[in-house]
Amino acid sequence: MEKLKVLLHIDELAKWHLTLANAQNLLDDVGENQVQLEIVINAIAVKIFDAKATTDGDAKEHLINRMMLLSNRGADFVVCRNALRANSVNEEGLPPFVTVVPAGITRIVTRQAEGYSYVKP
Amino acid sequence: MEKLKVLLHIDELAKWHLTLANAQNLLDDVGENQVQLEIVINAIAVKIFDAKATTDGDAKEHLINRMMLLSNRGADFVVCRNALRANSVNEEGLPPFVTVVPAGITRIVTRQAEGYSYVKP
Amino acid sequence: MEKLKVLLHIDELAKWHLTLANAQNLLDDVGENQVQLEIVINAIAVKIFDAKATTDGDAKEHLINRMMLLSNRGADFVVCRNALRANSVNEEGLPPFVTVVPAGITRIVTRQAEGYSYVKP
Repeated sequence: MEKLKVLLHIDELAKWHLTLANAQNLLDDVGENQVQLEIVINAIAVKIFDAKATTDGDAKEHLINRMMLLSNRGADFVVCRNALRANSVNEEGLPPFVTVVPAGITRIVTRQAEGYSYVKP
Repeated sequence: MEKLKVLLHIDELAKWHLTLANAQNLLDDVGENQVQLEIVINAIAVKIFDAKATTDGDAKEHLINRMMLLSNRGADFVVCRNALRANSVNEEGLPPFVTVVPAGITRIVTRQAEGYSYVKP
Repeated sequence: MEKLKVLLHIDELAKWHLTLANAQNLLDDVGENQVQLEIVINAIAVKIFDAKATTDGDAKEHLINRMMLLSNRGADFVVCRNALRANSVNEEGLPPFVTVVPAGITRIVTRQAEGYSYVKP
């Protein structure tokens, strides 16, 4: 059977836990070999990667660890450069498993044109 | 003409009124014979079915009555088992018109692969 | 190449800035000649067009000016009549670049059936 193609969209900091739980439930339920999963991050949600932010350091580190585990299971994390600039997040400080694209919105709509399902947790 | 296939996704308790209003407007506008409508419920939104919750009892009963009316008009209500467990909601106490699936996220993406439109009110 | 077809959905007043930023980023990134962009407005988000609202007048005017600029670049703004009535917004007072449809939800799902990608900022 052809793999499921799935795009999760996150643009709020408060939705990180929910978004990663959806990703994990999907991989657990269908198996990482049966799904092509991409998480597209834009707007203020990119602040999770802000090395200068000092509050909630533990929560942030915990979330980035969860992302890395999902990345190891095949999930792709894609970040919007417009959002990085608008939120003063340094591109060089991003975790190695993250890919930067010029505009997250373009990625979201071209992926759907390629047959990806869209989910906004 | 082929029926419209529509999936509404709800994952926040505060979005119940808005989600059911969208469902009702759709059925009123196109007619229940012209649409296959499914509402997929995951994350904390499943707490609407928590029999132990004591606050907002009237609001909860009112919303569940509205769901029943929409169910009578052909709408399907689908609940995520992962979410029921994470929120300690007892599966046996669910209204009879509700269907439980192992993972709501899988349902959302497979329905889209089958041609359903996705809306997140 | 065929144009990208994109529908942005807004149903919260607080999401106007974010939604218009997504629209602008998309037009800037792919070019207005390469995309058919429609913004569908329902629920309380229609209150942006409420002439009687007195607070945040500057912010409202600023947002409507941004919409007009996007409209001049080819974006279509579509408003739900159900939402206008539910929020007591007078149809006659709408900006000239706005189109009214009977039910926003129907527009959202028929556009997807026509091949539009859906994004909910």
